[in-house]
Amino acid sequence: MTTYGLLLFPGTEELDFVGPWEVFCASSMVLDAGERVVTIAEKPGVVRCAKGLEIVAQHGFADHPALDVLLVPGGRGTRKEVENPALLDWIRRVATDCTWVTSVCTGSLLLHAAGPGRDARLATHWSFEDTLEARGARVVRDARWVHDGKIVSSQGVSAGIDMSLWLIGQIVSPEHAREVQRYIQYDPAPPYQEEA
Amino acid sequence: MTTYGLLLFPGTEELDFVGPWEVFCASSMVLDAGERVVTIAEKPGVVRCAKGLEIVAQHGFADHPALDVLLVPGGRGTRKEVENPALLDWIRRVATDCTWVTSVCTGSLLLHAAGPGRDARLATHWSFEDTLEARGARVVRDARWVHDGKIVSSQGVSAGIDMSLWLIGQIVSPEHAREVQRYIQYDPAPPYQEEA
Repeated sequence: MTTYGLLLFPGTEELDFVGPWEVFCASSMVLDAGERVVTIAEKPGVVRCAKGLEIVAQHGFADHPALDVLLVPGGRGTRKEVENPALLDWIRRVATDCTWVTSVCTGSLLLHAAGPGRDARLATHWSFEDTLEARGARVVRDARWVHDGKIVSSQGVSAGIDMSLWLIGQIVSPEHAREVQRYIQYDPAPPYQEEA
Repeated sequence: MTTYGLLLFPGTEELDFVGPWEVFCASSMVLDAGERVVTIAEKPGVVRCAKGLEIVAQHGFADHPALDVLLVPGGRGTRKEVENPALLDWIRRVATDCTWVTSVCTGSLLLHAAGPGRDARLATHWSFEDTLEARGARVVRDARWVHDGKIVSSQGVSAGIDMSLWLIGQIVSPEHAREVQRYIQYDPAPPYQEEA
């Protein structure tokens, strides 16, 4: 019975967060075995995301269940949070007991600054690879997500969907991940792939 | 200056809603020309979505800007909303003045019940194609999204991302849609595509 904890902070990129939320929740629904997916912010309540969407965090740092999987999204808010000791301390503390510690997009900057990502190979949004490398991280530039020990980091925004599907395949089974993929009808078909 | 209005109702499937939200907001950010993306529910305030995420609707049916694009998501809540005259009347009224009327997943059941989708070819989640057809709709089963006049409907959950990218390509340009795709780093790579 896995408990997934998804971090929210002011300026979280919406799809970084909701892509994995959808995958983990669909996985829990399909399994129907008492899995939990919870949202956590420094304090519970409304969090204003990067593009203005307001999402309610169910739990605060001082009040949440023990987590098996931590997911740290990215977004413009990471520029501020990377200097927030309360948030970095919380990530460091929680990550110790998690089986998997994951990030989407610039969430890898937070994993790196907090400690758990200090020595891991990390992916991030294409436009922040140089920034992350300048901070001393081991950046991987050619993989949609990177698995290094218990750290799993993905590239930008929508990459969190692929990474989360991979993760539930590891936690449960590839067959289960395919069932969840079918539930969210994830047969991507980006338009305009040829020069018009 | 396009105004996008995204409908929320209790039981909205989270990714149905946030996929297009991310695409339309990223499009507006890239254009930087006064586009607006707004969230609308029957009443403003917190809406509990299908998997338990709580999102704040900025506007109510009685209080929102004029819309150019309406997006109707799906989710288990459609089973109730398809009998909600206040919601169906609002969709019918707003759709009249919109340039584009769109749906994701089982949102097409609402477009059909409300009127605007009555005579249009429609896509929906694969598991609801028979249900939608039994209601008298013209269901298309083999397209990720379907464009019929000003009605654009997509298949399930994640298909809203592809459909929204296509739509901003029509409203602005294919080059612009590709720039937004690059911003959200939408180079999908679903795992476990081979039998393990």
